[in-house]
Amino acid sequence: MDIRINLDRLKEDIESLSQIGRDPKGGITRPSFSRTDLEAREWLKEKIKDAGIALRQDGAGNIFGRIEGKGKTIMVGSHIDTVINGGMFDGSVGVLSALECLRRIEEEGLEVSKPLEVAAFTDEEGNLVGDFLGSRAFLGHMEREVLEKGLTQFGTPFEKILEGTEFTYDTIMSAHEQRPDIEAFLEIHIEQGPVLETENKPIGIVDCIAGKNYRWCSFQGRASHAGTTPLELRHDAFLGLADFALKSTRHVATKHYGNMVTVGKIDVMPGAFNIVPGQADFSFEFRSTSKDTLEELEKFFLGLAEDIASTRGLKFTSEIVDKTDPVNTSPRIIDIIKEECQKLGYPSMVLPSGAGHDSQVMASIAEVGMIFIPSIDGISHSPLEQITWEDLDKGANLLLQVLMRLAT
Amino acid sequence: MDIRINLDRLKEDIESLSQIGRDPKGGITRPSFSRTDLEAREWLKEKIKDAGIALRQDGAGNIFGRIEGKGKTIMVGSHIDTVINGGMFDGSVGVLSALECLRRIEEEGLEVSKPLEVAAFTDEEGNLVGDFLGSRAFLGHMEREVLEKGLTQFGTPFEKILEGTEFTYDTIMSAHEQRPDIEAFLEIHIEQGPVLETENKPIGIVDCIAGKNYRWCSFQGRASHAGTTPLELRHDAFLGLADFALKSTRHVATKHYGNMVTVGKIDVMPGAFNIVPGQADFSFEFRSTSKDTLEELEKFFLGLAEDIASTRGLKFTSEIVDKTDPVNTSPRIIDIIKEECQKLGYPSMVLPSGAGHDSQVMASIAEVGMIFIPSIDGISHSPLEQITWEDLDKGANLLLQVLMRLAT
Repeated sequence: MDIRINLDRLKEDIESLSQIGRDPKGGITRPSFSRTDLEAREWLKEKIKDAGIALRQDGAGNIFGRIEGKGKTIMVGSHIDTVINGGMFDGSVGVLSALECLRRIEEEGLEVSKPLEVAAFTDEEGNLVGDFLGSRAFLGHMEREVLEKGLTQFGTPFEKILEGTEFTYDTIMSAHEQRPDIEAFLEIHIEQGPVLETENKPIGIVDCIAGKNYRWCSFQGRASHAGTTPLELRHDAFLGLADFALKSTRHVATKHYGNMVTVGKIDVMPGAFNIVPGQADFSFEFRSTSKDTLEELEKFFLGLAEDIASTRGLKFTSEIVDKTDPVNTSPRIIDIIKEECQKLGYPSMVLPSGAGHDSQVMASIAEVGMIFIPSIDGISHSPLEQITWEDLDKGANLLLQVLMRLAT
Repeated sequence: MDIRINLDRLKEDIESLSQIGRDPKGGITRPSFSRTDLEAREWLKEKIKDAGIALRQDGAGNIFGRIEGKGKTIMVGSHIDTVINGGMFDGSVGVLSALECLRRIEEEGLEVSKPLEVAAFTDEEGNLVGDFLGSRAFLGHMEREVLEKGLTQFGTPFEKILEGTEFTYDTIMSAHEQRPDIEAFLEIHIEQGPVLETENKPIGIVDCIAGKNYRWCSFQGRASHAGTTPLELRHDAFLGLADFALKSTRHVATKHYGNMVTVGKIDVMPGAFNIVPGQADFSFEFRSTSKDTLEELEKFFLGLAEDIASTRGLKFTSEIVDKTDPVNTSPRIIDIIKEECQKLGYPSMVLPSGAGHDSQVMASIAEVGMIFIPSIDGISHSPLEQITWEDLDKGANLLLQVLMRLAT
């Protein structure tokens, strides 16, 4: 059907929203339920109302705009919260492109048979009580203990953050009661990686959201004087970590190409020029689109760490921080996205998502489909996050076509 | 000559001094010019006066006890300041063994021809303005700018620390004016390493104090999302550091056996679970008893770092923090120590000192000799620092014999 989104309007929306939560230190800081987020919520609600679409909000603060129809709902959305000093496209592109699609359908008076909803989920970034607070509450998958534990990224208790909002643990726990039946969930998002740009494709079709294994690990040796302890008598915990990081990376690169492994956070103690490190604590995470590979890798890494520890006179310990299984998107929707891409003449490629998204939560109750547009230089979660408006135009138009196919 | 130190008295002195500056967090905290150090100084001065030895203090707070004689002075000493949460033997063993030697000579009324002095140098540990404040000022090698820069380990300006003491920049700068002519400087010290214990020798004879090259280095890459950036597109600064640490250690272990190389302090940024490290800052130090080796290693390490940076798409930078040349002890005194060791029947070995000591400063104006006694488990700069009284007895008796040989 020859209907196109209004790029100028979408662009203006993205730019307007990005004015809310500008951080003096750079980028945008708009974690859910912060002052800036509450302002952004009001802005979004006005936009939905202005479009003549029925506004709804649930007890977890998820915001919806609905066009009525018959049967199960086709939902399309993402999130408007950000990480600290984040960028202006992560999440916002998804919510505002979805809004633009519904707005175009509404203003053209198009007949779509199924109900359509735009959704903006609370705290996708996990600043409060872990990832996906909003979508998990929406599905009834939130556990009250997680809320009560309430250790937010900011040190402030979650309870304190909820004060002065209209939300409580009770409203969050009952958010799922207001949920309509959902047939499919669509999301457009920036890639947050360099693959589309490297492959020169404006469109990515996500076939799988990777599962992950997050661990907090430690090599323990013995701190000693760097001037007086011969190399062969040292128990250098940092060299154990160095060895482990290189060998685990090499293993994935050579034996499990396409999967991810990262040591991102490191704490070496006591941490002085002239003291051989006695302890090296570090985060270790690996991701794969295959559950079997995740299990194989876990076994391999733990064995490797033990080997290195025993060779180097160290002790190794490790605890799981988070673990999720890979989630497949809907093959039917992948085919629809491919067909619509071809009709529109947009080059595309199928790729996995290494990052987590609300789509992976939604996959447990609905068919999901995800579209990526390129991140310039692969940068995200940064003030330097950037896209091209041409790519956004393609992505949002593709989303509109797919939405119409699913809704009709 | 059949004269022995009084081990019980020496032991009691070491234990008494260790009561001053007990840190509630463990060990002893007695940095120079702290409240606890000022108390320790008064204690030491009383001990010197009680021994009937002439007490003197210079403008840098160095404390001396002198037995008059003819010709150049034979000096013997160490330091009584400690690192934060340090042990009770580092430095104290040297000062109190020296005092015990002079005390025995004095109470036996032995005729020694040359003047003898016990010395306790200020801030050997470098808590205030870099290592060896006291001995450097004593030699007139202190630079006023170093004092004025005054960035102490505690954040407190040096000027502030001097308030309420009898010392000023002026008195420190003029400390060397009161210095007698010195022929030889002797020091007994705990090894602070595991070699003597591993080799099962109660006595170490130091032939050289290693030179060192301290650098603050950085690999810079690009921070990116750990879930979405394929391994081959990463610029992971931490993996650069890991590679460099392992290869530089391997190089020293295989090609320059006996020398030291250490990465002790590490700061990886941004330092999050799911972000590929964009920058890895680290301390890098290497030590050798050969100046040529130090120069060769410097060249090799800088080349290695550049290689790794270019292979891994990183940038490498490095700046010198401190650099000292190796210092040889006196071959004549080494021979005397060996002979006296043999006479006493103590097993010994010649070894270098990887740690710095006031002796290395003194070597520029006098012959120096250094005796090590074993550190249990090689531990030092720790509440767990330990020796055996048997080893101390041997070391202090050896010191006494060597002192008498040099003084007669």
